[in-house]
Amino acid sequence: MNNLNFSPLKKLEIIVDGEHKGFVTDLLDRAGVKGYTIVNNLSGKGSQGFHEGHLMFNEEDVLVMIITAVPDELVNPIHEGLAPFFGKHSGVVFISDIQVTRLVKFSD
Amino acid sequence: MNNLNFSPLKKLEIIVDGEHKGFVTDLLDRAGVKGYTIVNNLSGKGSQGFHEGHLMFNEEDVLVMIITAVPDELVNPIHEGLAPFFGKHSGVVFISDIQVTRLVKFSD
Amino acid sequence: MNNLNFSPLKKLEIIVDGEHKGFVTDLLDRAGVKGYTIVNNLSGKGSQGFHEGHLMFNEEDVLVMIITAVPDELVNPIHEGLAPFFGKHSGVVFISDIQVTRLVKFSD
Repeated sequence: MNNLNFSPLKKLEIIVDGEHKGFVTDLLDRAGVKGYTIVNNLSGKGSQGFHEGHLMFNEEDVLVMIITAVPDELVNPIHEGLAPFFGKHSGVVFISDIQVTRLVKFSD
Repeated sequence: MNNLNFSPLKKLEIIVDGEHKGFVTDLLDRAGVKGYTIVNNLSGKGSQGFHEGHLMFNEEDVLVMIITAVPDELVNPIHEGLAPFFGKHSGVVFISDIQVTRLVKFSD
Repeated sequence: MNNLNFSPLKKLEIIVDGEHKGFVTDLLDRAGVKGYTIVNNLSGKGSQGFHEGHLMFNEEDVLVMIITAVPDELVNPIHEGLAPFFGKHSGVVFISDIQVTRLVKFSD
């Protein structure tokens, strides 16, 4: 029997320079996230990201977006883990409410 | 005269192995969705997706994300259509609330 | 000392033919957005986007998605700026509520 469940979670979209992809995925692994999806080869431009008046990205930068869905209680630990990184590097984190389908199989 | 309308819809982001892209878009076509956008060549890693303890994606997998915006009443039929697929294959579906701009032209 | 702030913003995801990327980013620059991220080489299919009965995208089109996060009061000006464009070209705009992390550094 299949049962359709919708779990409310927070979606994090973490955009950083491609060279820092491994740092972010390691941090997510250690935080205990169940998985993530990576969009490679983004471009972008920005100023005033985490630092006022600091150019965030140049248009030529190759960026990645790391997408993950986490329970509410993981949002702050992940951000605290990212804070020292964003003290030195550029990036942005989008947070939104989503539901994720999990298909649970029951045998009877 | 142009008139700006915002329609509340559900955004579905369906992430599957690239080889199953056609299955998902065919299902969306049959469900009557108006269109979709596909992000190709994603990478990802995951466990415990639709099956507890089952490795969802390997880091080397080439994944695709199929993005579509549908009225609320299409969410369940699409998920029911995907259920047998997710009984055999890996993937995840993110659902979120969005508004979509539709520009309607009136002549007067 | 680091201080973690979450700012509520609107995320705009603007999907257009790749050839019109510069038009959209110029418009965002003039509207005063702080930055944007571009997902290149999307594919897609659609009908009835901004014009009823008009094929929005062909499956072969190379599309781009331009992602930006803006304060609420910029949503309407940006859409008004896009309206004449969408009178002639195809595309779609997704709007959703997000929070964006800004890490503000204080020295004491």
